[in-house]
Amino acid sequence: MKARVTTVNDTEPGRHMAAEVAEQPDVLAGLVQARFDITAVATRIAQTPPRFVLLAARGSSDHAALYAKYLVEVLLGLPAGLVSPSTTTLYQAEQDLADVLLISVSQSGGSFDLLEVTQAARARGALTVAVTNTPSSPLTEAAELAVDIRAGTEQAVAATKTYSATLMALYLLVDAIRGGDAKDVADIGELATRTLDDSEEHVERAIGRYRFAERILTTARGYSYATALEASLKLSETTYLPTRAYSGADLLHGPVAAVDAGTAVLGIAGAGHGGAAMLDVFDTVTRSGADLLCVGSAAHSVPSAALTVPVAESAEEVAPILEVLPIQRLALGLALARGLDPDAPRGLRKVTRTR
Amino acid sequence: MKARVTTVNDTEPGRHMAAEVAEQPDVLAGLVQARFDITAVATRIAQTPPRFVLLAARGSSDHAALYAKYLVEVLLGLPAGLVSPSTTTLYQAEQDLADVLLISVSQSGGSFDLLEVTQAARARGALTVAVTNTPSSPLTEAAELAVDIRAGTEQAVAATKTYSATLMALYLLVDAIRGGDAKDVADIGELATRTLDDSEEHVERAIGRYRFAERILTTARGYSYATALEASLKLSETTYLPTRAYSGADLLHGPVAAVDAGTAVLGIAGAGHGGAAMLDVFDTVTRSGADLLCVGSAAHSVPSAALTVPVAESAEEVAPILEVLPIQRLALGLALARGLDPDAPRGLRKVTRTR
Repeated sequence: MKARVTTVNDTEPGRHMAAEVAEQPDVLAGLVQARFDITAVATRIAQTPPRFVLLAARGSSDHAALYAKYLVEVLLGLPAGLVSPSTTTLYQAEQDLADVLLISVSQSGGSFDLLEVTQAARARGALTVAVTNTPSSPLTEAAELAVDIRAGTEQAVAATKTYSATLMALYLLVDAIRGGDAKDVADIGELATRTLDDSEEHVERAIGRYRFAERILTTARGYSYATALEASLKLSETTYLPTRAYSGADLLHGPVAAVDAGTAVLGIAGAGHGGAAMLDVFDTVTRSGADLLCVGSAAHSVPSAALTVPVAESAEEVAPILEVLPIQRLALGLALARGLDPDAPRGLRKVTRTR
Repeated sequence: MKARVTTVNDTEPGRHMAAEVAEQPDVLAGLVQARFDITAVATRIAQTPPRFVLLAARGSSDHAALYAKYLVEVLLGLPAGLVSPSTTTLYQAEQDLADVLLISVSQSGGSFDLLEVTQAARARGALTVAVTNTPSSPLTEAAELAVDIRAGTEQAVAATKTYSATLMALYLLVDAIRGGDAKDVADIGELATRTLDDSEEHVERAIGRYRFAERILTTARGYSYATALEASLKLSETTYLPTRAYSGADLLHGPVAAVDAGTAVLGIAGAGHGGAAMLDVFDTVTRSGADLLCVGSAAHSVPSAALTVPVAESAEEVAPILEVLPIQRLALGLALARGLDPDAPRGLRKVTRTR
């Protein structure tokens, strides 16, 4: 079992996903190393400082966009919002977007709806930036500025390295806009390596424990809410399990009623404000009988957790880049254990054409 | 069975929820009638026109806020965003909120986090409006302006009339800001009555069909995406079933892999752009084997639907106020059929205290 998760050969199910998960320390370190391109984009943005930031994305990229929304609000002190593409594509909303920075996030740069949103926003006065893994895509051509996440070709349908590289690129962009020097991510490659290495046996135990789980709920607060959303999507698209992500605060507002002994809860417990605010939530779900798996740099200190997966400690706003790594391996391993090939999920294409 | 859903007495499970569902035509018509208060708030807002709109809410109110975000973008032509309360409550983000209108939505007006967000936003230059069912609440005192949704006391833990009344109030507010005269909702009481009456036997059939369903996925696009989110929450908190809402566009980006013959899909099919954009999604999920229940004014024209629930036709931006009515009855009826009391969901309080 263990070898299937971590090695690669030409015929094994999940080989692309396994290889791409393992590439991430190099991808992340390489992006920080080559960040001068991103710094140049940030300098251009800082010349005409925006007053409002919009983020447009779909799928995994939407979780990266939410992460960036927190960065913009906290580190830049600007109000921000996630775009609902359909107000443009279905209803032709004619918004006044002067003083707005629109960041469109798409690994392929090929989503029709994001292209239309970006073109429309640029025409209505927004400064537009495309964050993609495809420098010559329609989206990078439509936007005034472009950030390349430099993740290399991704063959697995389930996004892994493009997700973490997108988070990394968005962090570097926001950090550079505020005049930062990327010091909190200087050793991101080592932190990612340590996280993958140190979490491995814990992930194996989690694969065994959740082999027969019938529903998984994921939850977090603060920056790590993006991790909970991405964990839910990754588990759902590889294992076909019914999964659902909640902010820890929202969970207590109603959905907790559906939590019982038949629920596996994956909670993110990082050192910092977001993790600290989750302790109440962890108590509540375990009192309801749920089986709790905690992932994060403070996971070991959650007494009610049935299992924990450690993550290397970092600045809190950087943690989502690391937390997702063992979760990707969990999704991969659970899919394999359940007889599925996460490289070929039914019904999915790498680029989805929606308007 | 039918009688349990539609009548009220002192001992029956779900009696509060049933009564409050049935009150909605009067509540909605009464709010339109008494809209002068809302018009006065709109006039004050229009005196210093905002350039960006932020919406803050939790739980069901968050779905109402998303509906309002679409209204603001399409009808007012302004960029808008949903607030992540934790950037204020956990990270003390110091945002520049000049030219920002913050609309805080909470039926109780008692959520600590929304109170903190509203106070902080007002201190940082935002014009603040509280939309609540509790005119003397801490939230209405914290905000500069207040809108009363006039729904009367809600006894059931599951929000029904406060949800539709919140949508109604937000529609009236946005319509008045743009100088409208509420003409598209002049007959909302009759439309709501007709929707409840005409959908009743269809809802009974759906209760029978989904009595043994093990997972329900809800989906929609455009304005009705709010309905899909509320349907998912309402079904989950009354029946404890694992439910999940997706925008039709997001669904095709990954989660569709988890759709199979074991999945009941509740799709919103209204006349208009949002419903038209769902036809592809309906085809895809039914090809994957899912059992499709379509709710909406165009539901009858979806050939792949196993069951349909009609909704009275209205302007597309008003449809979410009506679509949710038969869905509330479905949630109530399914809970009763499964031996649960939707008036007393386990683990829930009416006001949730999160920061």
